[in-house]
Amino acid sequence: MKIIDGKLTAATIRQELKEKIDKLKLEGKNVPGLVTILVGDNPASEVYVSSKIKACSEIGIRSKAEKLPSDISEEELLNLVQKYNEDINYHGILVQLPLPGHISEDKVIEAISPQKDVDGFHPISIGNLVIGKDTFVSCTPAGIHELFKRYNIETKGKHVVVVGRSNIVGKPIANIMLQKKDYANSIVTVCHSAAKELSYYTKQADILIAAMGSAEFIKGNMVKDGVVVIDVGINRIEDPMKPKGYRLVGDVDFDEVSPKASFITPVPGGVGPMTIAMLMSNTLKAFERYGE
Amino acid sequence: MKIIDGKLTAATIRQELKEKIDKLKLEGKNVPGLVTILVGDNPASEVYVSSKIKACSEIGIRSKAEKLPSDISEEELLNLVQKYNEDINYHGILVQLPLPGHISEDKVIEAISPQKDVDGFHPISIGNLVIGKDTFVSCTPAGIHELFKRYNIETKGKHVVVVGRSNIVGKPIANIMLQKKDYANSIVTVCHSAAKELSYYTKQADILIAAMGSAEFIKGNMVKDGVVVIDVGINRIEDPMKPKGYRLVGDVDFDEVSPKASFITPVPGGVGPMTIAMLMSNTLKAFERYGE
Repeated sequence: MKIIDGKLTAATIRQELKEKIDKLKLEGKNVPGLVTILVGDNPASEVYVSSKIKACSEIGIRSKAEKLPSDISEEELLNLVQKYNEDINYHGILVQLPLPGHISEDKVIEAISPQKDVDGFHPISIGNLVIGKDTFVSCTPAGIHELFKRYNIETKGKHVVVVGRSNIVGKPIANIMLQKKDYANSIVTVCHSAAKELSYYTKQADILIAAMGSAEFIKGNMVKDGVVVIDVGINRIEDPMKPKGYRLVGDVDFDEVSPKASFITPVPGGVGPMTIAMLMSNTLKAFERYGE
Repeated sequence: MKIIDGKLTAATIRQELKEKIDKLKLEGKNVPGLVTILVGDNPASEVYVSSKIKACSEIGIRSKAEKLPSDISEEELLNLVQKYNEDINYHGILVQLPLPGHISEDKVIEAISPQKDVDGFHPISIGNLVIGKDTFVSCTPAGIHELFKRYNIETKGKHVVVVGRSNIVGKPIANIMLQKKDYANSIVTVCHSAAKELSYYTKQADILIAAMGSAEFIKGNMVKDGVVVIDVGINRIEDPMKPKGYRLVGDVDFDEVSPKASFITPVPGGVGPMTIAMLMSNTLKAFERYGE
């Protein structure tokens, strides 16, 4: 059994990005810019945004953190997005979700220029992903795909079983793994809560991607020997032994499943750190493709 | 075993559409309009386009058939699309594919206003389909989904196995059947030529959708008893007994598979006729949603 170390891989990617941006600076060129837009004061969202800004600063990406009151109108937010669509200093626009209930997330996402859609949530980015065109891929599925590359995991003709069908993980990773491309070209099954018996599907997986958001749901008897396990879940469970009174676990019961796995991502330190690394990578891509 | 009669179902849908449009006429209202754009003189494309125009005329949809020489420039074609984007008399724009090699199909499809994208090929339509938003769904997968509805076939929690991953059938029908919606909500497997053994997957299908374009590939021993079979293939095979020297067969060996199936679509007369019916339905939808 081999651990897929997402923390280390993400650090490597960030270092690679930093070297590319250092080179741009040395040449006296412009550098990529990312603007984050946060509405309201959801503490989790604040943590996410500040990690993204911190990553930018480490790598050398210009960043700006817009923070707006929760009672901002939809129109004002749309105008701000439009302003950054036109600002040549910012190549990526990230609107932190969720937004307050009076604002349509769909409208805001669709307002972002597809050329600056570094989160890959715009329907046009998703459509291009499905039909196999190069596009911005949302960061968590892009991070999973990157792990397959970096660990040289064979995927061609393998049976990838995705548990969960969310718009941000399950559906895009399924559509990625279907493509006739390197580190994809897999037979893909997407299963979910409507299945009579999930284990019927999970047991077939050569590569299991658990992304349903249910703590330690995947048990040892639900997988076959040699499975590659990608655990996307991040769940808090009570643990009085921990200083904070809880610990983080994935959707996979690591103790039970890891002895049967050939490769497995831990939680934390697996897929999680890859997400921000891929956001940084998408920002550089936006700059290279559409920047000045 | 029950035959899913696509010809009859398509005729029913066309009759329903005709009644709605007759009602609009009686009320003195505008009616839906469809423009077809054909470039060059591919005989198959000419047949397809004329069937579409004929269907419009039977139903009462205003139609216009633009026919352009094969040496038209990409820019001229894009300008024509733009002209119809702005023409309030045409609610749907259909550019018949394939286009000559010097014209980018992607560019032309992306030039069609998403509000008039009755073929459902625009990336934004595909993206919206994937994330579960109401949109124009391309006509063949929409036709398959409609057959499930009209024949009241149970799909929730069933294992749908799609053979083939084309952008116009395999990928969209897989993404439709995944959605948490009526006549969908299925566990979906997409398999294709990279599979070591396709029958491993096809044998598991509660509902098998064969869309790989390989004559009579699916044999009796590749399916289980009671399977619902949707055969999307249309292949010519030589047959000296037929006046034309060939006959049309699907991707499924009907004689072998039909005795095991609970429902099955024939070829011809199954999925095929549904395609034009769904194009007509999409045109009425475009009119109702975005028309005057």
